[in-house]
Amino acid sequence: MSMVDPAAPHGAKLLPIGLLGHGTVGAAFEELLADRAAHVEGLTGRRPQIVGVLTRSRGDFDEILERSELIVELIGGVDDALSFVRRALAADRDVVTANKQLLSRHGEELWQLARERGRMLGFEAAVAGVVPVIRVLRESLAGTQVARVHGIVNGTTNFILSEMTRTGCSYEVALAQAQHLGFAEADPSEDVGGADAAAKMAILARLAFDVPVRFEDVRYEGIEQITADDIAYARELDLALKLIGTAERIGDGVSVRVHPAFLYAGHPLASVGGSFNAVTVEAPTITEITMSGPGAGGVQTASAVLADVIAAAAGGARGVGPVPAAVPAPVVEDVVSAFYLHLRVVDRPGVLAQIARCLGDEGASIKSVVQRGLGEQAQLVMVIHPLLESRLRAAIARIGELDAVQSLPRAIRVIDEEFE
Amino acid sequence: MSMVDPAAPHGAKLLPIGLLGHGTVGAAFEELLADRAAHVEGLTGRRPQIVGVLTRSRGDFDEILERSELIVELIGGVDDALSFVRRALAADRDVVTANKQLLSRHGEELWQLARERGRMLGFEAAVAGVVPVIRVLRESLAGTQVARVHGIVNGTTNFILSEMTRTGCSYEVALAQAQHLGFAEADPSEDVGGADAAAKMAILARLAFDVPVRFEDVRYEGIEQITADDIAYARELDLALKLIGTAERIGDGVSVRVHPAFLYAGHPLASVGGSFNAVTVEAPTITEITMSGPGAGGVQTASAVLADVIAAAAGGARGVGPVPAAVPAPVVEDVVSAFYLHLRVVDRPGVLAQIARCLGDEGASIKSVVQRGLGEQAQLVMVIHPLLESRLRAAIARIGELDAVQSLPRAIRVIDEEFE
Repeated sequence: MSMVDPAAPHGAKLLPIGLLGHGTVGAAFEELLADRAAHVEGLTGRRPQIVGVLTRSRGDFDEILERSELIVELIGGVDDALSFVRRALAADRDVVTANKQLLSRHGEELWQLARERGRMLGFEAAVAGVVPVIRVLRESLAGTQVARVHGIVNGTTNFILSEMTRTGCSYEVALAQAQHLGFAEADPSEDVGGADAAAKMAILARLAFDVPVRFEDVRYEGIEQITADDIAYARELDLALKLIGTAERIGDGVSVRVHPAFLYAGHPLASVGGSFNAVTVEAPTITEITMSGPGAGGVQTASAVLADVIAAAAGGARGVGPVPAAVPAPVVEDVVSAFYLHLRVVDRPGVLAQIARCLGDEGASIKSVVQRGLGEQAQLVMVIHPLLESRLRAAIARIGELDAVQSLPRAIRVIDEEFE
Repeated sequence: MSMVDPAAPHGAKLLPIGLLGHGTVGAAFEELLADRAAHVEGLTGRRPQIVGVLTRSRGDFDEILERSELIVELIGGVDDALSFVRRALAADRDVVTANKQLLSRHGEELWQLARERGRMLGFEAAVAGVVPVIRVLRESLAGTQVARVHGIVNGTTNFILSEMTRTGCSYEVALAQAQHLGFAEADPSEDVGGADAAAKMAILARLAFDVPVRFEDVRYEGIEQITADDIAYARELDLALKLIGTAERIGDGVSVRVHPAFLYAGHPLASVGGSFNAVTVEAPTITEITMSGPGAGGVQTASAVLADVIAAAAGGARGVGPVPAAVPAPVVEDVVSAFYLHLRVVDRPGVLAQIARCLGDEGASIKSVVQRGLGEQAQLVMVIHPLLESRLRAAIARIGELDAVQSLPRAIRVIDEEFE
């Protein structure tokens, strides 16, 4: 390769970078890199420089690959990205990607390829933006047997739920506000439906437990069904509603799931507002660590990409190191959780006893119950002590058949330190 | 060296470790290492094993050094530790230490020595226990021009202030409670006086800004003077009182300081309670990242030591990398801050006007003022917009001379996102 960088000091050793994608993050990364190139050279002895950019309308991948030592993949999507990352690793290039969908579907293949080729596959920017949860799991907690990870890993949904809590507005109004402010896409379905968070939790679970976890292994729900009522009742109980990703060891298996959940006020994720992301890692030997910060944003995500580029410039295959091979473990589907239940009932003698019997028959124990309203308009809000979800579902089905119950109970999980 | 580890599988490559100190952390580290040795071997190909322990009553340093590739320094104190770490690095051993007092006083010499010898000097456990702030500053934020670091980096004082807030008790009662529960030493002066936090902030500032910062450069105050009244008034203003370490760039210089400060409720450090530590790092390109977790505890601190041992086993000098040489920068002594003022005054006409004149003459602008009580018992609680501390001190001196003011005003800094 013969390349001349007119801006580089005489004799500086270049790190030629091929950039795939030039959207918000790609453009921010190009700008940030230009600004910090001299600093990176001072740290690592190598001056990073973008030598080719691939977009839908310009650039040729093979030509860019030929000229690069490092490929930064920011095009998103799965199929093309998979092909490019495969080819880059196979050609002995280091790769940095922010693509959570790619890694949650094809991570094992790509990490295996990186191990075989002795290359770095950096992906700090794929989860929680600038919050350094990937590096902390891989390095700081490399010796720790992680028990559980809880995360707010989608900024769009956290913004919407924070707005609903702050203003009392409906889901639809909060979504429109998020779109207006640029916190939600025109088509927000991947975010609000939970798929984005599910992909990120698959990656976190993979790193936390060293077991293969694919996107398909993650059960997820979104926030589209959350009502202003749910949030209003929760506030009275001093609960915060968040879209929570959970990855935990259960016996010899793991459970990875994403769903709306109520947090007690003392939980470290309860105060994470706006579009911020946060992740709590629990283990006996560390108690818990919580990390929070912006989960998205062009320059913030570009900063996470830059951290991986610096690791590559410093000799990434040894620096960040390859992700260890995964050891399979069963995915546990039915897990224990506490629940909030909201029922519309006709207020007449014996109704609560009927409901309590349905719950009790399935082993569900009531922690608290509040009745609001009278007559045909009565509502019951209950918190149920932890039990297997399948048992609660069975109880709910029976409750739904009672004459005095006017609609199927709304059930939302509760994460409660007392219980755990 | 010829060593046989009866517990190691045939052919495993040992990483022989010399352990200096066998107190709470040292004993916890020995136990944790035994538990995780096979896991570390799986990750790094090397099986760590303690081959000698030095305490006041047993062991010989030279003999331990001879048998070790890595020295873990957990004896604390400055003089002996300095001698041991110097000799270990000079003998081309990697070193891991949890000693903040050592590094805040002799860090530049030791980091320089580690760079010259191409050795790792790991010190994750020296600041904020298991909270991985050292690694995040050195690696994840290596490309980031950090603007400011705020930290709760002393668990003893955070526990005491949290207790005072929770129960309304006095400083003395909260301290006794902390001692009873093991969160404070019998002689708590290094913690409650701020010296412990000052040492940690010197290290964080050194890493955040790549400038030399010694313990002597840090201005610090403790929490001994905080009263139950201060906390009660603050709660009415929705302020949380914390012992806050601040490191920030000011022009071409830096300021590093530790003092009690009021935080507005939305600040990410305001909700960090009990003995937890937390650090917020701010920069334009990342907005802010906050990390929190246990700042002390035997097994938790041992976990931070283990993370550095794993980095060493994986080839630490390249993995974590040497701390770059520092570029000197002036230490700024007089900084801008908002203030809370508490005055005992005689309630008579014109008093507030006199006080306001003293403030106004020094450029201090009043954000809010509340009067409590009447006659000889009146109290004024004010919040002052940000100004140079020297100007506020001048105003306070003048206010103290007024006939109607019965004691020197109490001034506590306020950290307010609005202002910053």
